[in-house]
Amino acid sequence: MGMQRIWEEEAPSVAVPITRVDGSRASGANDLLAVEEAMEIRLGEQSLSITMRTPGNDFELAAGFLFSEGIIRGREDIRFLGRPSDGSPDMVMVELVEGERRPRVQPERNFLMTSACGVCGKASLSDLAANSCPTLSPDDIQIEPDTIHRLPEGLRKGQSVFDSTGGLHAAACFNLQGGLESVREDVGRHNALDKLVGAALMEHRLPLNRSILLVSGRASFELVQKALMAGIPVMAAVGAPSSLAVATAEHAGMTLIGFLRDGRFNVYTASRRIVGTEVPPW
Amino acid sequence: MGMQRIWEEEAPSVAVPITRVDGSRASGANDLLAVEEAMEIRLGEQSLSITMRTPGNDFELAAGFLFSEGIIRGREDIRFLGRPSDGSPDMVMVELVEGERRPRVQPERNFLMTSACGVCGKASLSDLAANSCPTLSPDDIQIEPDTIHRLPEGLRKGQSVFDSTGGLHAAACFNLQGGLESVREDVGRHNALDKLVGAALMEHRLPLNRSILLVSGRASFELVQKALMAGIPVMAAVGAPSSLAVATAEHAGMTLIGFLRDGRFNVYTASRRIVGTEVPPW
Repeated sequence: MGMQRIWEEEAPSVAVPITRVDGSRASGANDLLAVEEAMEIRLGEQSLSITMRTPGNDFELAAGFLFSEGIIRGREDIRFLGRPSDGSPDMVMVELVEGERRPRVQPERNFLMTSACGVCGKASLSDLAANSCPTLSPDDIQIEPDTIHRLPEGLRKGQSVFDSTGGLHAAACFNLQGGLESVREDVGRHNALDKLVGAALMEHRLPLNRSILLVSGRASFELVQKALMAGIPVMAAVGAPSSLAVATAEHAGMTLIGFLRDGRFNVYTASRRIVGTEVPPW
Repeated sequence: MGMQRIWEEEAPSVAVPITRVDGSRASGANDLLAVEEAMEIRLGEQSLSITMRTPGNDFELAAGFLFSEGIIRGREDIRFLGRPSDGSPDMVMVELVEGERRPRVQPERNFLMTSACGVCGKASLSDLAANSCPTLSPDDIQIEPDTIHRLPEGLRKGQSVFDSTGGLHAAACFNLQGGLESVREDVGRHNALDKLVGAALMEHRLPLNRSILLVSGRASFELVQKALMAGIPVMAAVGAPSSLAVATAEHAGMTLIGFLRDGRFNVYTASRRIVGTEVPPW
């Protein structure tokens, strides 16, 4: 597919072939995705952060991150800001002038990095393919477009808080006929999905390999990766997916749906599970 | 103000008094905010993660996080999942059964925690007040409501990618008359703001104490904290703010605006900088 060029050109967006579904009519189309790729910020020998970002303005991103973290107070604290010697576009190296503050790393307060799926400064299609990123077992799941169209309404009925604050993300599980199984909400979209998967784990319902996941916002790499870990074969987002979300879903054989609203949706990967989308995708 | 009860009741939402602006008309009202608070997940003696979350389903959140990170494979790997002995509602303790996998912590890949502003498992109003969270210097900034109304259109004109993918967050700086100064985009909203602040830093334009910040999505604690670090006195979001974003802005004296769209907006804090909003806030 045409996505290979994302990683070659470092463009902020990339065109991919999709299947567009309007009501029950499917047609091939192209869609522009926002590019999402991992970038590492290194301070001397130390790795400070690995963030999923859209390429572009990487040095500004590193400088702004260091400033927000209280590591630098201004440009004058920076002695070097640039690429590593191998020219890797996924890394920014920073060196501070002598005597400047070192980061106040508190080992007991560090974050674990999502290390399960290639998100370690090398998130590319080839790395994903070579990595331990989970893939889905074959299945014969067939879902009617109308079932997909009805998911947002099912989510709204299951949500307790969203409509009142407008500030919560939601993640919901449905069965293959569109019946709501569970829903969780959080200000953090990753948290909403963690809660949903955690509930299934505590109730011995994993893997969720006969479930459809709906997320209220956009589909990022991290959400797709979490869904894959839980064995979810079909994921739908009300908003847009990122390039790396699509690449990861493609690699794993997950059906990824985006822009699910107003009686329409886009199928980005594995459209075979959606009835009636067997059109040439482009 | 009425927000104190967020931290007492652990509710997913809380009502706060706001100033609602419709065109140039201001009126007092109440608004419901999604609650955002820090929670720490500890595995034995080790701190695995501090996440900003909406209270509720905390044990599920911890279990789902451990599963997604590949630390547990199922409920049977968990020996204990509960609160610490002091009953703190901001912490979940996990112990694994003997012989189970320990997390593959890779020290060189850890994240730095945003430690500058009380987000260390104790994010409460009183902790914020006692902490080193930055506050703004006094200013005499006065902004016309119409200037605020025009910001989203200014952002749209300055954005290069957003309209084509629907998948990028944007952060933009405007002067006090609403003129666009700079705009940055990213799949991650924190990155978009880091890029914006980083650009200002590299160009010796910090602090941005005569600028208005507009963010395309919601206003989280982390975004407010980054804006405060950059000295930004007025922040507007197209979407909803969280409870902790409002509390942090209130403490620092920042004017925080939310739901800026369709000729309307809500002023959550420091409405003194917005002309004509000197109404009793409730």
